[in-house]
Amino acid sequence: MTQSTDHSTRQEHRKPVWKQYLPVLEWLPAYRREDLIGDLLAGLIVAIMLVPQGMAYALLAGLPPQVGLYASIIPLILYGIFGTSRALAVGPVAIVSLLVATGVSPLAAVGSAEYVQLALTLALLVGIIQAGMGLLRIGFLVNFLSHPVLAGFTSAAAIVIGFSQMKHLLGVSIPRSAHFYETVLVTLESAAKANALTLGIGIVSIGVLFYFKSGLGKQLKRWGVADALAVPITKSAPLVVVLLGTGLVWGLGWHESGGVAIVGNVPAGLPPLTMPTLDGDVWRLLLPTALTISFVGYMESISVAKSLASKRRQKVDANQELIGLGLANVGTALTGGYPVTGGFSRSVVNFTAGANTGLASMVTAVLITLTVVFLTPLFYYLPNAVLAAIIMVAVIGLIDVKTFRHVWRYNKADAASMMITFAAVLIVGIESGILIGVAAAVLLFIWRTSKPHVAVVGRLGDSEIYRNVLRYPVQTCPHALVMRIDESLYFANTKYLEDTVLSHVADHPEIKQFVLVGTAVNFIDASALETLESLIYGLRDADVELHLAAIKGPVLDRLQAIGFVDKLGEDRIHMSTHDAMKALGCMERASN
Amino acid sequence: MTQSTDHSTRQEHRKPVWKQYLPVLEWLPAYRREDLIGDLLAGLIVAIMLVPQGMAYALLAGLPPQVGLYASIIPLILYGIFGTSRALAVGPVAIVSLLVATGVSPLAAVGSAEYVQLALTLALLVGIIQAGMGLLRIGFLVNFLSHPVLAGFTSAAAIVIGFSQMKHLLGVSIPRSAHFYETVLVTLESAAKANALTLGIGIVSIGVLFYFKSGLGKQLKRWGVADALAVPITKSAPLVVVLLGTGLVWGLGWHESGGVAIVGNVPAGLPPLTMPTLDGDVWRLLLPTALTISFVGYMESISVAKSLASKRRQKVDANQELIGLGLANVGTALTGGYPVTGGFSRSVVNFTAGANTGLASMVTAVLITLTVVFLTPLFYYLPNAVLAAIIMVAVIGLIDVKTFRHVWRYNKADAASMMITFAAVLIVGIESGILIGVAAAVLLFIWRTSKPHVAVVGRLGDSEIYRNVLRYPVQTCPHALVMRIDESLYFANTKYLEDTVLSHVADHPEIKQFVLVGTAVNFIDASALETLESLIYGLRDADVELHLAAIKGPVLDRLQAIGFVDKLGEDRIHMSTHDAMKALGCMERASN
Repeated sequence: MTQSTDHSTRQEHRKPVWKQYLPVLEWLPAYRREDLIGDLLAGLIVAIMLVPQGMAYALLAGLPPQVGLYASIIPLILYGIFGTSRALAVGPVAIVSLLVATGVSPLAAVGSAEYVQLALTLALLVGIIQAGMGLLRIGFLVNFLSHPVLAGFTSAAAIVIGFSQMKHLLGVSIPRSAHFYETVLVTLESAAKANALTLGIGIVSIGVLFYFKSGLGKQLKRWGVADALAVPITKSAPLVVVLLGTGLVWGLGWHESGGVAIVGNVPAGLPPLTMPTLDGDVWRLLLPTALTISFVGYMESISVAKSLASKRRQKVDANQELIGLGLANVGTALTGGYPVTGGFSRSVVNFTAGANTGLASMVTAVLITLTVVFLTPLFYYLPNAVLAAIIMVAVIGLIDVKTFRHVWRYNKADAASMMITFAAVLIVGIESGILIGVAAAVLLFIWRTSKPHVAVVGRLGDSEIYRNVLRYPVQTCPHALVMRIDESLYFANTKYLEDTVLSHVADHPEIKQFVLVGTAVNFIDASALETLESLIYGLRDADVELHLAAIKGPVLDRLQAIGFVDKLGEDRIHMSTHDAMKALGCMERASN
Repeated sequence: MTQSTDHSTRQEHRKPVWKQYLPVLEWLPAYRREDLIGDLLAGLIVAIMLVPQGMAYALLAGLPPQVGLYASIIPLILYGIFGTSRALAVGPVAIVSLLVATGVSPLAAVGSAEYVQLALTLALLVGIIQAGMGLLRIGFLVNFLSHPVLAGFTSAAAIVIGFSQMKHLLGVSIPRSAHFYETVLVTLESAAKANALTLGIGIVSIGVLFYFKSGLGKQLKRWGVADALAVPITKSAPLVVVLLGTGLVWGLGWHESGGVAIVGNVPAGLPPLTMPTLDGDVWRLLLPTALTISFVGYMESISVAKSLASKRRQKVDANQELIGLGLANVGTALTGGYPVTGGFSRSVVNFTAGANTGLASMVTAVLITLTVVFLTPLFYYLPNAVLAAIIMVAVIGLIDVKTFRHVWRYNKADAASMMITFAAVLIVGIESGILIGVAAAVLLFIWRTSKPHVAVVGRLGDSEIYRNVLRYPVQTCPHALVMRIDESLYFANTKYLEDTVLSHVADHPEIKQFVLVGTAVNFIDASALETLESLIYGLRDADVELHLAAIKGPVLDRLQAIGFVDKLGEDRIHMSTHDAMKALGCMERASN
């Protein structure tokens, strides 16, 4: 060991403020030529994935396909400048697209100009909320979304998304329903009217996508193909089915002869400059959805950003991430897009393909720009069923049975909050569902801490160690009851504490002292302080002395400052359980 | 010490179920003659207080005075049978009466038959909710009402109640306002039109009540009057002002000559049998108020019940208390009353006057019955101003500046939730106010635990004790960072944990091992488990080993069962911090 405090202070010289808010200034001036290949390759591969995905997710959101492409340009550049993750791939994602559809479709007809306008207004709101939370440094609020709630939400949302695409796969038209079960019923009814050719294209696309996802990688490995080549090949699956589907329909004229629905005309040209609606009433209507997207989108993004950054010992700053994503959303609102966030799968691809800096995102943005300017005519014959297949394969992995089983085995309360969220999203609705889930998680947490683990402890042999009398053969003191409480004392468990203490005292008339051991008490709030004070007097009236042992330094400081120690009596506070036992004369009879 | 586990098991022979649900069977068969005097005296004194208070609180609730008396008969008998506290005095109380007025007055005209009917329907709902919570054993839900929130609510409610009585004191008529500030403004405006005689009666009554409350007791002591006599005398203050006020108005005819408002005709006779409204729509309208009364009423009652029981080493069962109060409310609903609960001041009087069993409550009930049957004509000339004075003096003590100052000094977060509740009740409204307070308390609690205290620790001298490097001159190990986290790990702080660990690792490239010390970690929920798992892999990619030390038994059992220990590696788990240091080779250089 070395006499040092070098780990202690976290004492870097504080960054200048402008650098903190502009992470681009960290990596750009120090850009190394050897990072360039990785950034270029990663940017290219992500672009290959993003073109079909962007169009597909726009479709899922009820928007024209080009909106998904517009949302894949400016936001990426802004995130590259303001975001702290070096490998996060921002753009349209499935869950956010579903939330857009849920929030906007009750307010305007799908496909109408009004609908598009509302979607970009929604993006502006999301941008303001996220950037605002980042600037106010209140990002901790998203912590209310626990992992089980998020997993339950994502799984249910994936099912809703999957079913919403069935109409494109079947080639039938189904009106949007407010309730999921209605969508399921109507979809099942219309299965009989399916367009066989459309369904065929869809099923083949799904087959190809799955093959690229699992079988092909192993195959390429067996053939000795290097990873640097294998990754781009496997990740180009969406592009492959797009080309295949487009080629078939174009070559065989299935859009006319077979009634296969196609994307049709996608306008060419740079993203338009757009002005979101600045109307308080509209904002109020969109606010619940905007809040949901802000929280859910951020959670999806920050999880992957952190996990990737940790692999290279890089840091992600939670509040700056909110600012970065917020500005990306403001950007998408001004350039004809819709809400975006950092996507899980594309970010992982970006990282493994070698993205070293934000430049990779910028490369993607340039390639998408070239696509919207020059390549949109190619998408005319693209069947909707192909895009539906891309969405369905993308979301199937979000149905998280494994996490559910894991959580169920680990902790029933967490499993309950996951199940409640899952069921509420499917039964009540997407947005109410997640709110119900969050409330359930908070309630279950309070419930969990409201009945803390409490142990009456005794002395282990001749040691100074005190353990649970129920687990160990220990010695106890006839006139002193020693109880360890394994939880911070706060309003939710203060009644339980009081009940437990008083009930032990009532059950054991021989007790003259009651010792509360605080090794696991990290804080005592005002409610618990009040309870402890009333316990002093209540126990005094019952001829029992209250003692405290092994209270933590910061907790004791507080009790001292508020005068509790004086009320209790200085001599009733003991440094350790053993000290308390000695002071109470329990050692004298140790040999009896 | 003795080798024993006698404190451990709490092993009384379990009570038979019927005895658990009928506490009367505990005390009645074993009734001792020497308890009788205390019970009779306490019952009498409480009745003397309750007659004027019952009428006054009914007035506050917007109900005819006899309703307050009806609510003081059957509920007391039912609580005596089903309640577990021996000294709790059930009946009308100020806060619940205010809540009744708040909830019912928007639905019916004050004083109308419909209003009375709604009030007793409300009592039925409260009864069902409380008894239901008791039977389902979900009484822990009331824990959401923290002490600061309750204190903030009570203080604000006392101010609202006090102002609501100003019109009776001034002898003017003021319409009920939805907002407190309106009531204040209108009251101030009408002060100029005050009836001088009414105001005089009110002010003299207030003076007498205050004198009995503080000065008289000392005076009697100086005169050598025994407590057994002094207590009944001081507690009869409401009766004294009632007699004085009634006598003056009757004798001098002020109700006619001076325009002094009087109670008027109070019907004589036993409480009527009444049928609450059984209509789903009405129930839905009353539900929010019923929930608020159920929670707030129960909290007021259980606090005093527990504090009194502890003085005699008796037990109060929280769920049975809910059942007892619930049945009391069902009883009041069927006999022309309105919602009741255990009142603070009357219960304390009951206890100090010598109430030994539930018989005291039954004595009170009999005396109130005699009052409504025979004595109501006496109240004809009772001025409303006297009742208002009784209410105002009763509630002034509820304005809890002392608690606020205490909490402010102790803990700013608790003080904030108290202030928020206080302000919200006055500004937004009684019921929304308490909801806002509860939400604020939960939010502040989550916020508090979302950034737990974290300490990098080092070895203290040559001991096995490890302490915060910032507070103690300790030795650290250059290649191993040891961090203690002083909080359970759960969804609200899992992001903070991850941030902190990763940021330390990023700041200290020399680290090869990261040791997390779990002495203060009482549980790890599924979100935190997920974070720990991702930390294993994230740190591994950064060439840092994750180690855990001093994890508590129950927590470790869980981690083992879910396979986390296998993922981490058996050799990465250490019994104590010192064991971890030894295993990581930090001892070898101890003499450097």
